[in-house]
Amino acid sequence: MLATLGRDDLGDPSRLHLEGMTARGLLEDARDQIAAALEVRPRSVVFTSGTTESVATVATGARERGAHTVVGAVEHSAIRGWAEHGPHTIVGVDALGRLDPDEMAAGVGAETGLVHVQWANHEVGTTQPVAEVMAAVRSAEGAGSAALIHCDASQAWGNDVVHPEALGVDLMTLSAHRVGGPAGMGVLVIRRGLRLDPLLLGGDQERGRRAGMENVVAAVGLAAALDEALVDVGVESDRRRTLTQRVINWAQSTSGMSVLGDPVDRLPHIVCLGLAGVEPQPVLLGLDAAGISVHSGSSCSSEELEPSPVLEAMGVDADRSLRISVGWSTSDADVDRLLGVLPRVLAELESLRAG
Amino acid sequence: MLATLGRDDLGDPSRLHLEGMTARGLLEDARDQIAAALEVRPRSVVFTSGTTESVATVATGARERGAHTVVGAVEHSAIRGWAEHGPHTIVGVDALGRLDPDEMAAGVGAETGLVHVQWANHEVGTTQPVAEVMAAVRSAEGAGSAALIHCDASQAWGNDVVHPEALGVDLMTLSAHRVGGPAGMGVLVIRRGLRLDPLLLGGDQERGRRAGMENVVAAVGLAAALDEALVDVGVESDRRRTLTQRVINWAQSTSGMSVLGDPVDRLPHIVCLGLAGVEPQPVLLGLDAAGISVHSGSSCSSEELEPSPVLEAMGVDADRSLRISVGWSTSDADVDRLLGVLPRVLAELESLRAG
Repeated sequence: MLATLGRDDLGDPSRLHLEGMTARGLLEDARDQIAAALEVRPRSVVFTSGTTESVATVATGARERGAHTVVGAVEHSAIRGWAEHGPHTIVGVDALGRLDPDEMAAGVGAETGLVHVQWANHEVGTTQPVAEVMAAVRSAEGAGSAALIHCDASQAWGNDVVHPEALGVDLMTLSAHRVGGPAGMGVLVIRRGLRLDPLLLGGDQERGRRAGMENVVAAVGLAAALDEALVDVGVESDRRRTLTQRVINWAQSTSGMSVLGDPVDRLPHIVCLGLAGVEPQPVLLGLDAAGISVHSGSSCSSEELEPSPVLEAMGVDADRSLRISVGWSTSDADVDRLLGVLPRVLAELESLRAG
Repeated sequence: MLATLGRDDLGDPSRLHLEGMTARGLLEDARDQIAAALEVRPRSVVFTSGTTESVATVATGARERGAHTVVGAVEHSAIRGWAEHGPHTIVGVDALGRLDPDEMAAGVGAETGLVHVQWANHEVGTTQPVAEVMAAVRSAEGAGSAALIHCDASQAWGNDVVHPEALGVDLMTLSAHRVGGPAGMGVLVIRRGLRLDPLLLGGDQERGRRAGMENVVAAVGLAAALDEALVDVGVESDRRRTLTQRVINWAQSTSGMSVLGDPVDRLPHIVCLGLAGVEPQPVLLGLDAAGISVHSGSSCSSEELEPSPVLEAMGVDADRSLRISVGWSTSDADVDRLLGVLPRVLAELESLRAG
């Protein structure tokens, strides 16, 4: 990606001249690579500026199918935000954050244009029964709905094998930066044969499905990151699971600590801990001072530490959580350090409170 | 920008940890630099993924002011596309591509929510009487409209001094790649005190005006490019004007050639030539073979060489144009080469036709 950004022979990929065609070649090579990894046709891959834009495209594009949306209470804030703009049914989750396929299907009516089902929860890691939700919704659709099914799989790349066509979803959103790719790049997978009106109007880039000059450098970066991430996705996924399992084991044997979300059927790279009676902000600061970066609350709400809607939906304390994630560069030594520092930070806060 | 992309100590700028705060610092420094260049407050600068997204934000955000849009016939396809989605008035132009302020104002009614007026035309270079349109529309607004005025200034940076607040527009869109910055980055300037609903819902990034993880590297790249471009914008602008004037002089003295757009009140870096009776595609290919990249038709329609709506609105041949632009790296020697090769390409095509 650095090499591509440094090139001076690339132009607007929509132009017929040499610089344009060279850029177009790089863009389409990146699309081919990404499509091959997803086992879809290259034309099913639409480049966007990120998941937030992809989700907006899905939400507005599905409106002609029906105004009503069925959405899980634990979906990403962008998805809930769009659903709440129109008639919608919010489907709750169990205490582990998992959706019930029959409840999802029961929400679908003749006016339903869109059903969202996430690959796994972005905050607590619980994997969702996507295939079962698909099956239940499709049989409800037999009753007259033409709803599209969208799967937000932003958390999936790098942690799991993702084949949207085999899964049978109509639309899938994927994020570049979650897999080590650049910010400002996302992928929207559109099922073969499905026509979806664009969100961004203007030029006829991306086969008329997304106007705006293509971000060739970012597409190249995503393809390269994906290439790297998918070499041994099973091995890397197991490695991450082992790292986070250590945190889970520690939390399960530590008083005042709980593990939020499903401790087994979960994303390998996330653990969400509940902190009984401890405010997360000083914990974050204490860990940060030791060079350990974690997060609290919604994974995507910014600046303020708002109560997490995901945890609220699960019926647990929504104000006191710690989200710990590991990635390709995280080692056993990093987890050692976390498990050394975190108890110390908590003990200091406890003694301050007691004092 | 390369150095920033290569750093491994940057995180999500919405996070409270060190990597997040470091990235946030870079993002806000870039915003400060860009705001200073525009002479607006930093909070007036909203980063988007490009002009196409900025325009979509403007078009959807202005709807609550009124459903009707007034739009010049020569605006960018993204702008015309949005206007045509609802009730709208298209205002024509004269043979040079220029809007008439009184005609623009006459289009404004009580239902008008948005008026678009471009800084200058992206295809023929004619500058628009933005201040006069502003004044005429504002007095028409006395009659009851609360329309917002949006100026698409994508072509302005690097060619002119741009101060949206001094000009008094409500909204201005600017593009990074036009000034040598990266693709995938645009700026939407929102007038002080104006609230505009976001297009992209989700997190509360960009003060709740644009959800989605911020593209820090691209913001840094834009600030750096702008810094470079604005050192001597007057000198550089004069240099570009001198280069394009040579093409204009040649065309005006060459049979079968015409200059489209205003040859005087124009952007310094663009010339649009009319080719009497010659198809542009073989001319493009002939120039490209000689290492000269030019374009034909709409500057933003992609892949296909469609008739240009801008030229149609001017009442000239919309199928046979050649758009030549110069930039910071274009030299006198490049123009020498163009003026050597272009007549030869045209003569070859003529002899093929005659043969």
